[in-house]
Amino acid sequence: MTGTTHDDHSRSYAARAHGMTASEVRALFSVANRPEVVSLAGGMPFVAALPLDAVGSMLGDLVTDRGVSALQYSTAQGDPVLRELICTVMALEGIDAAPQDVVVTVGSQQGLDLISRVFLDPGDVVVAEGPSYVGALAAFAAIEAEVVHVPMDADGLDPAALAAVLERLLAAGRRVKLLYTVPAFHNPAGVSLADSRRAAVLEVAARHDVIVIEDNPYGLLGFDEPPQPALRSMTPTGVIYLGTFSKTFAPGFRVGWVLAPPAVRDKLILASEAAVLCPPTFSQFAVVSYLQTQPWQEQLKVFRELYRERRDAMLEALHDLMPSGPTWNHPAGGFYVWVRLPDGVDSKAMMPRAIAERVAYIPGTAFYADGGGADALRLSFCYPPPDRIREGVRRLATVVEAELDLLHTFGPASHTPTGRPGAEHTRGRVRADSPGPELA
Amino acid sequence: MTGTTHDDHSRSYAARAHGMTASEVRALFSVANRPEVVSLAGGMPFVAALPLDAVGSMLGDLVTDRGVSALQYSTAQGDPVLRELICTVMALEGIDAAPQDVVVTVGSQQGLDLISRVFLDPGDVVVAEGPSYVGALAAFAAIEAEVVHVPMDADGLDPAALAAVLERLLAAGRRVKLLYTVPAFHNPAGVSLADSRRAAVLEVAARHDVIVIEDNPYGLLGFDEPPQPALRSMTPTGVIYLGTFSKTFAPGFRVGWVLAPPAVRDKLILASEAAVLCPPTFSQFAVVSYLQTQPWQEQLKVFRELYRERRDAMLEALHDLMPSGPTWNHPAGGFYVWVRLPDGVDSKAMMPRAIAERVAYIPGTAFYADGGGADALRLSFCYPPPDRIREGVRRLATVVEAELDLLHTFGPASHTPTGRPGAEHTRGRVRADSPGPELA
Repeated sequence: MTGTTHDDHSRSYAARAHGMTASEVRALFSVANRPEVVSLAGGMPFVAALPLDAVGSMLGDLVTDRGVSALQYSTAQGDPVLRELICTVMALEGIDAAPQDVVVTVGSQQGLDLISRVFLDPGDVVVAEGPSYVGALAAFAAIEAEVVHVPMDADGLDPAALAAVLERLLAAGRRVKLLYTVPAFHNPAGVSLADSRRAAVLEVAARHDVIVIEDNPYGLLGFDEPPQPALRSMTPTGVIYLGTFSKTFAPGFRVGWVLAPPAVRDKLILASEAAVLCPPTFSQFAVVSYLQTQPWQEQLKVFRELYRERRDAMLEALHDLMPSGPTWNHPAGGFYVWVRLPDGVDSKAMMPRAIAERVAYIPGTAFYADGGGADALRLSFCYPPPDRIREGVRRLATVVEAELDLLHTFGPASHTPTGRPGAEHTRGRVRADSPGPELA
Repeated sequence: MTGTTHDDHSRSYAARAHGMTASEVRALFSVANRPEVVSLAGGMPFVAALPLDAVGSMLGDLVTDRGVSALQYSTAQGDPVLRELICTVMALEGIDAAPQDVVVTVGSQQGLDLISRVFLDPGDVVVAEGPSYVGALAAFAAIEAEVVHVPMDADGLDPAALAAVLERLLAAGRRVKLLYTVPAFHNPAGVSLADSRRAAVLEVAARHDVIVIEDNPYGLLGFDEPPQPALRSMTPTGVIYLGTFSKTFAPGFRVGWVLAPPAVRDKLILASEAAVLCPPTFSQFAVVSYLQTQPWQEQLKVFRELYRERRDAMLEALHDLMPSGPTWNHPAGGFYVWVRLPDGVDSKAMMPRAIAERVAYIPGTAFYADGGGADALRLSFCYPPPDRIREGVRRLATVVEAELDLLHTFGPASHTPTGRPGAEHTRGRVRADSPGPELA
């Protein structure tokens, strides 16, 4: 061997890799996982509510009875029986789909990755709600696309604002390929797209030749009403639909899916083969067994009741304990409350002080590709029990109160990230706050 | 809704997606899966040799005892206990590695994908043995890199030929980023890199600033000798190592890994987060349980004996039944025999006739990025029992004999793919014979 070493591989990196760096927020999350910290940060479903003995026995039987298939390679498109069952799940939200148009993915994150590979060239634009799901932002950034946000309000994405953004981008000569949207119980904003806006959103997208990516992890986790029909139920074309079993069963299997028109489906399958050969066979068989042998719709009710109780605990605690100034929404489903902070309070700068007070959240900046969001934060009510949620909010209220006191005394700090608008916004970079289980 | 439809999304595809089309070979494979066909095509390990009852009971216990963690999200780098165990597995091939430098992947295919994302810009060159693993070719093509093959012989990759190819590419102004190699029981060529060549291969790569990607799925499946030390055992730098449990345990869990220097490891983790959030937690816990509670080294001996017996059956049948003309190697491990056909016999053109005779194989063209390989084919001995292997070879011998008769009577057919050298070779295309379970 020569004395040459390759410890520094930086000469060999692809252009897209130079921006792949971990964020400083990460270091805080490693601290946030300590048991003394109440984490209102992660989007982890409460899988302890599953009937674990029954699931264990079901998986034991699966290996004994069908292990030769369950442990083997399978096809990139996914198990045919699972794809049939996925169609029955989607029918709950009004979607009439054929199993041959479903592609099983390694969680819906892989669906976002495959869609990015098939549609996005470097420099292409994706429009998305502001704020938007951090994992989607990471998938689009990894392929060097640019995300432009569209404002949303209590009724979700605003079709007039969408049209204005698309016109502006068109006038600037930009190619907008996709609209990425989470219409039901949005992550992180907690709102749903109003029925009255749905046709208009689809119409605006179609008029601008923009494909709608409907990401729907939480649609079956509404607390009050039956599920809204999905956008995909309103049109068989123009919408590519993403689903997952991560929130309705368990994320540890990594089973999601994409429903796409045949030509797109074929490209997604080939892209998935190059990426992973096939999604985990055992995971797919586990989901099939779960849907075929367990009372999964009853279990959904259990989850809905559990999350509703936690949502109530969080809203009550916010109402009782938060000083005046912050505002928040009242989510009707899903996992998240979006809190807006008063002018001058910076959620990212506040984070180390919150950790010191033993409470964790996600700063709003994680959910914007353009440096926005410092005036907001995401709280999750899915994982901790109600008393821990109340304790977490109590600690957070203390931190916010101290920030407000400081602000009252000294005025806004000049070192906050809001002082450098756009600093985190570089096309082709994996964003500083890239995803991961804490941000799921 | 407007009348606009998006059935034709072709206006919106990324440049890299236009070449994503399925091959005609695919249609044949769907026929090849019929029970009356003896498939010598697929690289599926014989998982029926696993103690399925014990594995089933182990997985049942896993959910009952640790379901709350096993069913949850986990980190993108992979379970720490699994990464420790992976280091003990790698130690069997002389590798001294730290768990913190291991990244768990969705099979080693995802390792290839992540490495491609981190290192390869469109137009970059990867050098690889000719023939080479079809899944690697697909991963490199998906990122629009170009593969240039280096000749190999019975001793594996030829370092002098490697140096010549690298010099030629350098002189042509091409940037060669990676050398992709399968040094142990090569897929599809069935040979191993001789000890006497190993230092020279590493030296040539280092001298040209080319990172070696060592893909080692079969290293523990040698029939005669203890495992050769891996290339990675000879140098802690300059080699990125890929491993998998697909052949030593079960592919249905999709658990592989990458061992990489810290800076590269960090980028692989971020790329994996953007691609899948985290590898399947349940699969990782299943592998941990298997390694911790089952006699996995004894099971490796079972697999080795089983595959040795099948290798012997295939070699004996080839010797007894094949007409004179074809030649083949005698693999000392792994899953594959590489058969060279006489001049004028085209393995791809012969494929429909083989299927008609109820035997399937993979044409050599699947393993070349440059249109080569029509004079060869891959036979797998891993899956069918010995008597089926013999029957499959008997059918194949009939087909080859008929081809040789035709050739003797009429001369070479003018319509064969060999008549169009390079026809399949287009940079930036997912190759026609993209991977999938049949080609694993």
